[in-house]
Amino acid sequence: MSSIFSKIIAGDIPSYKIAENEQFYAFLDIFPLVEGHTLVVPKKETDKLFDVSDEELAALLVFAKPIAKAMEAVFPCDRVGISVVGLEVPHAHVHLVPINSADDLNFTRPKLKLTAEQMQATQQKILDQLNQQ
Amino acid sequence: MSSIFSKIIAGDIPSYKIAENEQFYAFLDIFPLVEGHTLVVPKKETDKLFDVSDEELAALLVFAKPIAKAMEAVFPCDRVGISVVGLEVPHAHVHLVPINSADDLNFTRPKLKLTAEQMQATQQKILDQLNQQ
Repeated sequence: MSSIFSKIIAGDIPSYKIAENEQFYAFLDIFPLVEGHTLVVPKKETDKLFDVSDEELAALLVFAKPIAKAMEAVFPCDRVGISVVGLEVPHAHVHLVPINSADDLNFTRPKLKLTAEQMQATQQKILDQLNQQ
Repeated sequence: MSSIFSKIIAGDIPSYKIAENEQFYAFLDIFPLVEGHTLVVPKKETDKLFDVSDEELAALLVFAKPIAKAMEAVFPCDRVGISVVGLEVPHAHVHLVPINSADDLNFTRPKLKLTAEQMQATQQKILDQLNQQ
């Protein structure tokens, strides 16, 4: 059975897409810790990140870099942090989060609830910045 | 001025070393969230992870992979999680943490206080496993 992320990548479940190439798909987390919180997912479904092939591991942060740079430019943050937890969805994924404190990467705290309009506006900010880079 | 991590890499400050190659140095975090908590640091000093060169970003997770696999084998955990926060030391570093819950990656919670003997035992567990892999 496909993971929820595979269904998103296939387009069977809608997402606020940020970027895509042959190996990876990036989209907004619908339960964000902070505005701009983005997930980067290898298209090939693997549970644990460190079971992903060396070739894909090597490409992952290079794919994420321009997205993180765009996020850092458009959201009020010190930098973009990374978290890989992976206990809830058995499909490896990397959280990119604009952070000002360690608590901005604390997954035990309540998530934001944003409207579809807010999510679209957030997506557009990142896409506009990516187009300018 | 060199960062505390550059001083550790240079051997001016002692560390519980786990692995090293030309690009990276891995050692136990002396303020661990969980036993086994390890830091992977690019030897070239750069503040923000996403300012590290594409070449080093590509090598980073591949370098970390066998360390994470060893940690996963020797500590009671569901998997090894990753966190990049970077607000305290201006030298990019990746936290590898054996996790059973999202709270195990929560940097706002109190850190463990381990004795030198406990740290050495933890180091030895990872090194023994790395030698067997």
